[in-house]
Amino acid sequence: MNDNRVSHVGNIVETQQARKAFYEKIDGSNCAPLWEVLHAVVTATPNTPCVPYLWKWDTVWPWLQESGRIITAKEAERRVLVLENPGLRGRTRITHSLYAGLQLILPGEVAPAHRHSQSALRFIMNGDGAYTAVDGERVTMHVGDFVITPSWTFHDHGNTSAEPMVWLDGLDIPIVELLDAQFREDGLSESQQTDRSAGSNLARFGNTMKPVEYKSRSRTSPLFWYPYDRTREALHTLAQEEPHVVWGHKLQYTNPVTGDWAMPTIGTFMQLLPAGFRGASYRATDSTVYAVVEGNGRCIVGDQVLAFGPKDVFVCPSWMPYRLEADSDAVLFSYSDRPVQQALDLWREIF
Amino acid sequence: MNDNRVSHVGNIVETQQARKAFYEKIDGSNCAPLWEVLHAVVTATPNTPCVPYLWKWDTVWPWLQESGRIITAKEAERRVLVLENPGLRGRTRITHSLYAGLQLILPGEVAPAHRHSQSALRFIMNGDGAYTAVDGERVTMHVGDFVITPSWTFHDHGNTSAEPMVWLDGLDIPIVELLDAQFREDGLSESQQTDRSAGSNLARFGNTMKPVEYKSRSRTSPLFWYPYDRTREALHTLAQEEPHVVWGHKLQYTNPVTGDWAMPTIGTFMQLLPAGFRGASYRATDSTVYAVVEGNGRCIVGDQVLAFGPKDVFVCPSWMPYRLEADSDAVLFSYSDRPVQQALDLWREIF
Amino acid sequence: MNDNRVSHVGNIVETQQARKAFYEKIDGSNCAPLWEVLHAVVTATPNTPCVPYLWKWDTVWPWLQESGRIITAKEAERRVLVLENPGLRGRTRITHSLYAGLQLILPGEVAPAHRHSQSALRFIMNGDGAYTAVDGERVTMHVGDFVITPSWTFHDHGNTSAEPMVWLDGLDIPIVELLDAQFREDGLSESQQTDRSAGSNLARFGNTMKPVEYKSRSRTSPLFWYPYDRTREALHTLAQEEPHVVWGHKLQYTNPVTGDWAMPTIGTFMQLLPAGFRGASYRATDSTVYAVVEGNGRCIVGDQVLAFGPKDVFVCPSWMPYRLEADSDAVLFSYSDRPVQQALDLWREIF
Amino acid sequence: MNDNRVSHVGNIVETQQARKAFYEKIDGSNCAPLWEVLHAVVTATPNTPCVPYLWKWDTVWPWLQESGRIITAKEAERRVLVLENPGLRGRTRITHSLYAGLQLILPGEVAPAHRHSQSALRFIMNGDGAYTAVDGERVTMHVGDFVITPSWTFHDHGNTSAEPMVWLDGLDIPIVELLDAQFREDGLSESQQTDRSAGSNLARFGNTMKPVEYKSRSRTSPLFWYPYDRTREALHTLAQEEPHVVWGHKLQYTNPVTGDWAMPTIGTFMQLLPAGFRGASYRATDSTVYAVVEGNGRCIVGDQVLAFGPKDVFVCPSWMPYRLEADSDAVLFSYSDRPVQQALDLWREIF
Repeated sequence: MNDNRVSHVGNIVETQQARKAFYEKIDGSNCAPLWEVLHAVVTATPNTPCVPYLWKWDTVWPWLQESGRIITAKEAERRVLVLENPGLRGRTRITHSLYAGLQLILPGEVAPAHRHSQSALRFIMNGDGAYTAVDGERVTMHVGDFVITPSWTFHDHGNTSAEPMVWLDGLDIPIVELLDAQFREDGLSESQQTDRSAGSNLARFGNTMKPVEYKSRSRTSPLFWYPYDRTREALHTLAQEEPHVVWGHKLQYTNPVTGDWAMPTIGTFMQLLPAGFRGASYRATDSTVYAVVEGNGRCIVGDQVLAFGPKDVFVCPSWMPYRLEADSDAVLFSYSDRPVQQALDLWREIF
Repeated sequence: MNDNRVSHVGNIVETQQARKAFYEKIDGSNCAPLWEVLHAVVTATPNTPCVPYLWKWDTVWPWLQESGRIITAKEAERRVLVLENPGLRGRTRITHSLYAGLQLILPGEVAPAHRHSQSALRFIMNGDGAYTAVDGERVTMHVGDFVITPSWTFHDHGNTSAEPMVWLDGLDIPIVELLDAQFREDGLSESQQTDRSAGSNLARFGNTMKPVEYKSRSRTSPLFWYPYDRTREALHTLAQEEPHVVWGHKLQYTNPVTGDWAMPTIGTFMQLLPAGFRGASYRATDSTVYAVVEGNGRCIVGDQVLAFGPKDVFVCPSWMPYRLEADSDAVLFSYSDRPVQQALDLWREIF
Repeated sequence: MNDNRVSHVGNIVETQQARKAFYEKIDGSNCAPLWEVLHAVVTATPNTPCVPYLWKWDTVWPWLQESGRIITAKEAERRVLVLENPGLRGRTRITHSLYAGLQLILPGEVAPAHRHSQSALRFIMNGDGAYTAVDGERVTMHVGDFVITPSWTFHDHGNTSAEPMVWLDGLDIPIVELLDAQFREDGLSESQQTDRSAGSNLARFGNTMKPVEYKSRSRTSPLFWYPYDRTREALHTLAQEEPHVVWGHKLQYTNPVTGDWAMPTIGTFMQLLPAGFRGASYRATDSTVYAVVEGNGRCIVGDQVLAFGPKDVFVCPSWMPYRLEADSDAVLFSYSDRPVQQALDLWREIF
Repeated sequence: MNDNRVSHVGNIVETQQARKAFYEKIDGSNCAPLWEVLHAVVTATPNTPCVPYLWKWDTVWPWLQESGRIITAKEAERRVLVLENPGLRGRTRITHSLYAGLQLILPGEVAPAHRHSQSALRFIMNGDGAYTAVDGERVTMHVGDFVITPSWTFHDHGNTSAEPMVWLDGLDIPIVELLDAQFREDGLSESQQTDRSAGSNLARFGNTMKPVEYKSRSRTSPLFWYPYDRTREALHTLAQEEPHVVWGHKLQYTNPVTGDWAMPTIGTFMQLLPAGFRGASYRATDSTVYAVVEGNGRCIVGDQVLAFGPKDVFVCPSWMPYRLEADSDAVLFSYSDRPVQQALDLWREIF
């Protein structure tokens, strides 16, 4: 080793020591060098902690039933099994930005009224005839229905049917947490009710019409019940046309008074993959949660094959290429943070 | 008469003569004094030439049949009886800004494809089973359906049923004329057709959902068929609630991808007046054309009583107070230029 | 003439007589055959009554001065010479849809406060130092300034300077008339005044910022004074780049809180044609009124050459091809109904 | 202790053991009980980790100078001292959702071109005459100027002046991270340059006008340079009016082609507190970063008093009440995630 080299190594060591000393000095005043972390915080492509995963209905359904035995709806406030992404354990979320859980409500039970700034979707997985009330207006829920409880509206659920009811809850909890805008309040009574007639919400907003005097007060859809019979009929009509190479026949739920997303923070979709469909590869920046309504197939994501059947839930992470296949006609509900990404000019897709 | 008075009169005469000479001098160079017409062109309240009027179906239906005998659909291009406002005769319009006509199409006839920058609505009055095609996509029309042929889209109509079909045409001809933006073009073939499946348009846009890949290219609704069975069911559900004191139960048709008006130039509405309804007085700046779908009642406008029954058409002028009454449950379709007035910050109503 | 021919002619005559009888019969009930006028009301291309014309400042300026001698501002309410399009004489308008006039206000005079649903623009042609007040807030006007008096806001003008002041008034009178939405009201006092500081309007809205608490209440710009010194500086900076082949360097005035047009019914523009500019041919559906601020040149429209100099006003009709040429650097203000046409999906241009 | 109590305690213990066993069982399949964490994830009010803090210029300025000696701009890529919130150490952010850093660029240095999906603002703290280039278009920066480098646009900085230049960088790194939408790319050359004339950007968009042919391609302002001389003049004009009780005279920067926020993810403001101003208490859900341009005063937040002077930076957390006081006329720049919260219907304020 010649002297220059020694000197150079010496310089490097010295520089590093000088820098380290500098970092320690400024650390006490809450300053830090960006250059040591720049490429870790501003990455070349999405560096999501979210990983692909599938929850089988056959696995979780017995557990849901068991949860019904070990805790009451009232005690739990919401009796829900959180679906936690394996890459985000302990953080109560299914993707980096969104929450998912399976909620059980037994015959005769009530989930009492409360409200919060988090927006919630309910997608009905099992059972028939429980209700959700939004600001006291009730709708009766059936498998495949998509129901919204908008930010800061009182909502309660009750099961007046004879069978256990399960739905998928999707919330924007991590987004509201990052923004530090959480608020929560209990209702004055356990259940709330207006004198709106049954079906009033759908009559007012569900037929490409709106009350002539209506003024929007939020970005969330005033229609909060999207019944599956309509969605399914629409998809089956469209099934007579050529499917899209990536997503088959796919519709997004809309807010009827803006034409935009049904919820400002969560995009919701329903799609039909015809029997034999072999989708092309696709990637987008919105990690997506899928819930299977009907049919069997596969999601091939990275080097994993997620074989899905009715009532399964699976998740595809941001920017990871994946493709969908169906053996029988398959109907998939899905949700993601796409509305947020689009509102902020961040969303990308490639296919 | 004393001298001063004489002198004053003399001054007035002189002034008037001087002004008249001045007006004549500048007239040759296309200049004119505003002060002579200011209060005629900038009036204190609307000074509409439009007057109230009702066309009885019993009167016009025989004439429509007669028109079917004296001219063919092909010869006429569009076999229509224009409903001309009595205050605007010779100007081919039912209000100051909008056109209305009753179009007859006989079994086996075709109204050939053309397109124009004027937007058109069709409201089905009589018959069942004729089609309208918009850019080749066909819908079958029934009484009470509201159909749009958007600006600058090819459209043709055909009657493949066994009975004569009549609909109300509403167009924005006077608006497009004032703006000097008229364009018109014949289709390459008499009828146009795509391979879209029947019901595709409603499936894509009629269920508070939209195709995930959809991008708007105009302000007009991509849904061009609003079937009456849905509208009627919605109104009958709402009829269980308290009616509005002025308009009963009234919905406006919306563009599902914007939540705004179905057409940028013409607002369209459907309302139900419950049997025994006695509406409060109302005035608005949009002259409104009403077409009766079901029921009997009255429109009391100024000192006139327009007694209406099924298939009658009547018009209420801008800013003239009127009220609606119904003997049996009455369903009224209506249209006006309200979207234009609102887009230009001009619309007003009082009740 | 053989028998067939005779018979055919006979048939035609009979048909025409039958139709005529039919037309007369239905006429009494305010019905008319569309097919007799269809191609006159739905034309292949714009069929504007507006024709090209130029008003020379040298001609109208003496007349404006003369109008100052034969009528007072108070007597006239607004002392304005209307610029009437030669194709629309007696209809108080410069294009089919818009009004133009030259308003004179002499030293010491006041044009008293009133408001109307018509929107007005003022473009300053001559003089310096008179004020316009909008809802009591005053701005001092200079040559080249663009000032807005929004729909239904009280406004008054006063000349506290020592010289006569002339501006071009542009209003949407014919549009508001077609829609039957005219309202007009006199102010309680002749002049209105707030305690807003001078320059407050520009400070709040003129610097790509807005008050943090600001909420829009109309589509019209809350900025109502666009001073020429800024506009001119911007154009002269842009003049270092390549001009557009049709319009040179052209900016449109915007509403700072929407980014859209400054007025909902009238589009306003300022453009610079560099010395020697020879513009390409252009046509659009918005008839356009030009007012020359600086420079000399020509507008070649159809077979006419409108040679323009400072303070001249000229008009180019809808869809008539025209091109602009400049001998010296020319600055042109212009206005048209483009915002209305775009809001209604009707506007077209070709170049 | 009686038997019932023993039995009850026994039951509780049993229940807890049963639940614990259940939790362990489902944990392996990535399920978890919501009821154990519900009130921790859905809190009654914002539960921000962000705490109030102030960085004194006198402290950080020597460190910035020292950083200039221990690392080159090229080596660092961006030579920045991150201002890390004491409640969020190691997470490279100043609030829960936003990043802040002080960037130094020495005479002759260049920060090479790159682009990323994160949006950045630059607020000039010290020095005069360095440039920022956005897509090759350069602006020269002065103290108090606000400069935007929009999402996914190439940008580089260079100091062609004789003095060190420091600006505050504000980025939306944590938001883009939560959404997993990060992208980053180096420029082909170190510096990029167009042939746009100096001042072209301000000429096109900075005068309440826009190029007539302009079409927006993003939600970020096309104006990327907001010079302080204009902002300051506006504030000093407004200072003649009554200040707002909470925020004095406060303007928000706008996107001139939408009227909305200048950046979709970061709201930016400038406010003037007149000498002697004693602001009322205020709280909002957007944690806010302040940078002092001129003057001295205090921010009283919770039980802390942050005494500020020129070039200091301080932060007020979400929902923590605070008030502002000024001894001399004080001018404060600030930024927060308010646009995101408002786009998602989450923002609240109380005063």
